[in-house]
Amino acid sequence: MTAPRYRAGQRVLLHLAYQGTAYAGWQVQPGQVTVQAAVEAVLSRLCDRPVRVHGAGRTDAGVHAEEMPAHFDLPRPFAAEALVRGLNALLPEDIVVRRLAAVDHDFHARFAAVGKLYRYRILNRAAPPLFRRRFVHWERLALDRAAMADGLAPMVGEHDFSSLCAADADTTTRVRRVVAAQWRETGDELQLWIAGDGFLKHMVRTLAGTLLEIGRGRLQSSQMAAILTARDRRQAGPTAPAHGLCLMGVAYRPEEVEQWRADLGDQ
Amino acid sequence: MTAPRYRAGQRVLLHLAYQGTAYAGWQVQPGQVTVQAAVEAVLSRLCDRPVRVHGAGRTDAGVHAEEMPAHFDLPRPFAAEALVRGLNALLPEDIVVRRLAAVDHDFHARFAAVGKLYRYRILNRAAPPLFRRRFVHWERLALDRAAMADGLAPMVGEHDFSSLCAADADTTTRVRRVVAAQWRETGDELQLWIAGDGFLKHMVRTLAGTLLEIGRGRLQSSQMAAILTARDRRQAGPTAPAHGLCLMGVAYRPEEVEQWRADLGDQ
Repeated sequence: MTAPRYRAGQRVLLHLAYQGTAYAGWQVQPGQVTVQAAVEAVLSRLCDRPVRVHGAGRTDAGVHAEEMPAHFDLPRPFAAEALVRGLNALLPEDIVVRRLAAVDHDFHARFAAVGKLYRYRILNRAAPPLFRRRFVHWERLALDRAAMADGLAPMVGEHDFSSLCAADADTTTRVRRVVAAQWRETGDELQLWIAGDGFLKHMVRTLAGTLLEIGRGRLQSSQMAAILTARDRRQAGPTAPAHGLCLMGVAYRPEEVEQWRADLGDQ
Repeated sequence: MTAPRYRAGQRVLLHLAYQGTAYAGWQVQPGQVTVQAAVEAVLSRLCDRPVRVHGAGRTDAGVHAEEMPAHFDLPRPFAAEALVRGLNALLPEDIVVRRLAAVDHDFHARFAAVGKLYRYRILNRAAPPLFRRRFVHWERLALDRAAMADGLAPMVGEHDFSSLCAADADTTTRVRRVVAAQWRETGDELQLWIAGDGFLKHMVRTLAGTLLEIGRGRLQSSQMAAILTARDRRQAGPTAPAHGLCLMGVAYRPEEVEQWRADLGDQ
């Protein structure tokens, strides 16, 4: 098997991972250091021509990604392996290309996505985190896990999530379908895993922040249904800190979403 | 059960953990940012008097510790819980007090130690590390694991490790006893775990660097015995990078060392 060599004009899908700590989020913004801008700068340098990349979505400042697919069109021929190596050699060390693939010329990383998977990590113990401190939100006092599970359950399904997204989330509809959601206890961490067809701005962080209020006993899990129905951001809890959040996957085939549903439990 | 309250003069053993990336090692050095200096500064501030801490050993610049015990004498009364909280509130976020304990007035964190446990992490794959990049040494090309295991085996036992330590390691004897040593394959990492009664300056890193040369095929595992016998640092491979190394434990009772031996295999 010979390694693939891409012709000029080939649309390529990058599978990126990044630590968001140092970035003002994914999307290019004037005067800000963003992940998209960093990737475009390196691709443009490698290809000797301006290259625009299109990500599967946006992540907020400080949010991480284990998997952010992004496509671009190659302005010159390139061997696949040389492209991966060149990118990883020139990218800052907090952005990595895990792999890449040739895609059809009409494939679009954002519009072709049929689902996303997020994880929100909470470290719930007296001692602060050390090696994980950029990746977990630390809660010193014991959280009521049963109440947090009760509060999460009504989120699954198709709902208007206006109460649980940024007030300025600009979209034609705030209806989204949460396919599956689960709290996982792994070691000393409590992790919120949530899969859906799409997520609004700040949606996972606001959900995490509201469930944390339930865990602290400041909200009742029975209030979650009413919070959702209110379609009013002020009814929910605070937005949980960005650094606990990580985009774990983007699905382009319904079977991938089905797999997440199976993994997280159908509820 | 009431939380302990320590009187003035009580000797206290801190169980510290730290990420070494930003530090010029453990030990206080003029004009350098060190872990010991950071801990002493915070303790002195909390106690309103200069406090000197004594660590179980030294770590090089960039080396991490999951467990570095260090003792000091309290110049004023302090509730144990308030001391832990105060320390963790004031320490930089890359140094954490996991717990503390009262010890006898003649206990010494360094001289009472009967064993140490280290881990050296290698990521052996084509794609560079991202979230782990401060903690693993990255090797792109496939390493010969069988040869690396063969090269490690002769290290176990009591030897003069002059070939495998810094040429300037100042000590009366370079004889040390390696109690157990093992390569562990965990996920995509290859980890060297090694326990002994004590380690010379750069000893684990030089051993890791020499075994890496064997893994790359540049040295033969059969040469390890001769390298050891030569008592000549120039016979061994390069010192592996500091950031892959972590001090995992310090033993004050022989049973703890026996447990490490059992966990790592007696060989």
